Amino acid sequence: MKLSQSFTKTMKTAPADETSVSAKYLLRAGYIYKEMAGVYDFLPLGMRTLEKIVQIIREEIDAIGGEELRMTGLQPKDAWVASGRWNDDVLDVWFKTKLNAGGELGLATTHEEAFTRLMKTFISSYKDLPIYVYQFQTKFRNELRAKSGIMRTREFLMKDLYSFSENREQHEEFYELVVKTYLKIFDRLGIGDSTFRTFASGGSFSKYSDEFQTLCDSGEDIIYLDRDKNIAINEEVYNPETLAQLGLNEKNLEKCKAAEVGNIFTLGYRYSDTLDLCFNDRDGKRQKVFMGSYGIGPSRVMGVIAERLSDNKGLIWPEEIAPYKYYLVGIGEEGAKKAAELYAKAPDNIILDDRINARTGEKFADADLMGIPYRVVVSDKTLAEEKVEFKNRKTSETKLLTLNEFISKLS
Amino acid sequence: MKLSQSFTKTMKTAPADETSVSAKYLLRAGYIYKEMAGVYDFLPLGMRTLEKIVQIIREEIDAIGGEELRMTGLQPKDAWVASGRWNDDVLDVWFKTKLNAGGELGLATTHEEAFTRLMKTFISSYKDLPIYVYQFQTKFRNELRAKSGIMRTREFLMKDLYSFSENREQHEEFYELVVKTYLKIFDRLGIGDSTFRTFASGGSFSKYSDEFQTLCDSGEDIIYLDRDKNIAINEEVYNPETLAQLGLNEKNLEKCKAAEVGNIFTLGYRYSDTLDLCFNDRDGKRQKVFMGSYGIGPSRVMGVIAERLSDNKGLIWPEEIAPYKYYLVGIGEEGAKKAAELYAKAPDNIILDDRINARTGEKFADADLMGIPYRVVVSDKTLAEEKVEFKNRKTSETKLLTLNEFISKLS
Repeated sequence: MKLSQSFTKTMKTAPADETSVSAKYLLRAGYIYKEMAGVYDFLPLGMRTLEKIVQIIREEIDAIGGEELRMTGLQPKDAWVASGRWNDDVLDVWFKTKLNAGGELGLATTHEEAFTRLMKTFISSYKDLPIYVYQFQTKFRNELRAKSGIMRTREFLMKDLYSFSENREQHEEFYELVVKTYLKIFDRLGIGDSTFRTFASGGSFSKYSDEFQTLCDSGEDIIYLDRDKNIAINEEVYNPETLAQLGLNEKNLEKCKAAEVGNIFTLGYRYSDTLDLCFNDRDGKRQKVFMGSYGIGPSRVMGVIAERLSDNKGLIWPEEIAPYKYYLVGIGEEGAKKAAELYAKAPDNIILDDRINARTGEKFADADLMGIPYRVVVSDKTLAEEKVEFKNRKTSETKLLTLNEFISKLS
Repeated sequence: MKLSQSFTKTMKTAPADETSVSAKYLLRAGYIYKEMAGVYDFLPLGMRTLEKIVQIIREEIDAIGGEELRMTGLQPKDAWVASGRWNDDVLDVWFKTKLNAGGELGLATTHEEAFTRLMKTFISSYKDLPIYVYQFQTKFRNELRAKSGIMRTREFLMKDLYSFSENREQHEEFYELVVKTYLKIFDRLGIGDSTFRTFASGGSFSKYSDEFQTLCDSGEDIIYLDRDKNIAINEEVYNPETLAQLGLNEKNLEKCKAAEVGNIFTLGYRYSDTLDLCFNDRDGKRQKVFMGSYGIGPSRVMGVIAERLSDNKGLIWPEEIAPYKYYLVGIGEEGAKKAAELYAKAPDNIILDDRINARTGEKFADADLMGIPYRVVVSDKTLAEEKVEFKNRKTSETKLLTLNEFISKLS
């Protein structure tokens, strides 16, 4: 991407009403644009980062047998009436609307009902099970108060995976596989060392659900973390009984603020009961399908990463999800010429700051603000040695690389 | 994709209320699922096809300088009040909803207002222009009657591109470039020979807009086509004046039914006026930005292609957008073994029909119904000659290929 041809510009200040660090930086660096409270557009840089997060999640969910599809935002009322969740007293984050042709609709806040109904068409026998299906889809939630930029919004992208199993045993095997997969995903996203499986309150079919919580000062949750055992307890179930059941000792626990980046639930028969999703078992007997749901919100995760991995100069993206890997600045006529040549070798990996009206100091400040992993400078001085200056955004370590060393990184 | 591990199943019949050929086949073959009238999920096969259509459009729009971003479905009322389109009498396909925090919202039916507002942040000088920005985004339209499956729905994917120019001259250069690009896109999508630039009614800033119409018996439009000149006129502007202006002769025109697959508009100052989007020109004078909009609905296009390129056995996808290129069937023990081996070489290009309980005839019927470009059969008989049977879905031409010839196609 050439900055001279990009419509976004960085800004010196963020809107006064944005209080979170991530929102300030993402707005100032041109990753997002605020339509209204809790509703943000993803500008080109933001979309690239979001898509990289999506792709990592997709690869890992595909690897455990997930089949991807895409459901709709508009959802018919009847399925939600049947499951008992249409009423605003039960689910208070509904956006509802009316059909010109008559009737009410909801904007999906989640898709348990929709997936359960879909499966009535495709599940008839135990031979059809297990089934693992997922989507990346926009959810709408009528939050009374949106906050923390893209960490808590009214419209956001969600990866929701649902499992359909013969029985609890088959379910639990997959459930534990998803736990492992989620930890791997958060590793790849660059927050593995600060993200913990966290026991939270369950439902009718399981004492606990599992959350994945990332340590974060502006997070909304309190967790009690056992660093040695790599697990945590959400405040909501922090009591002597939970400690005993999980074999944890109060003395080893650290009280931390954290932000939820994923959650998984044993749904059991909650939806197969109310929406009548059945199969014929090995003995020809009609049984309800045992379900689970598994969520990660890529846009929320992007906010949490931005929040956690920034410094006083701006964002610091992990390499795997940075919109571009290199921020290339040419200084002087020869430097600019060589920079353009290098850019042409890997335009999809490089931001070329070829702005004529920006001073070098501004360019360096923007490189830091945007959080691009490596800043690469080509000047008359470095070219005299056939080299480039190579700076690591995270560590600030600066070194000289030969042109060939840099070029070999590009391929 | 292995059919034994896929949750979708083909169906012998389509719902009685679906009248269009494309909807019947897409439902029966497991590409889509109907949530309610005019609202369809995209199942794994459908999502792959849709994504391939999206990717072709993306490549071509990127190639002419488009910058991709993603806006939101929830849209604030104020911008639409300012542009004069909030009122249901002006725009009758609104879905509106209420914020729990107070206030009304609309679900974007289109994004002219949103893009115009966004650009107020980024456009200040003629040096910032031109700007070309686009997105693939879900639109919601409260159609009184949804029909023809995914050809006319209440929720659909749209590629909408907007241009922001200094003046009409700069605008028109890009406009004509988009015309060429659209024709190239429809070529790549496999409907180039039946899709025509069609003059339709314009607005305040242009006598005509341009539609791209694909000949299609179940289309909703009537066009008058000059096959020699490769252009058409929409019925709505078919009159002596238009004929004269375009240099067309009534005698050379063919009256056809067609389905709109794209449209482009000169918006002029329609939105920059009402939403006050200005720039300082080369003389330091404040000027309004001259705008254009350019749409293609990938999900609608998928419906039109399915409608146009099917036969009495099912769908017939062009190679570039087929969800998979080969449908591989192994007959007999050795055939199945060899098929699995071949599949492992290119799982992303092949549907392996490894279902144990399906007869060969059913497998062949499903290959035809799904519209996969090439059916490949491996049996004891073909293996005796180290060959596979290779059948073209479109032409029905069948030939034998050596195993190596087929393997070389996979890489």
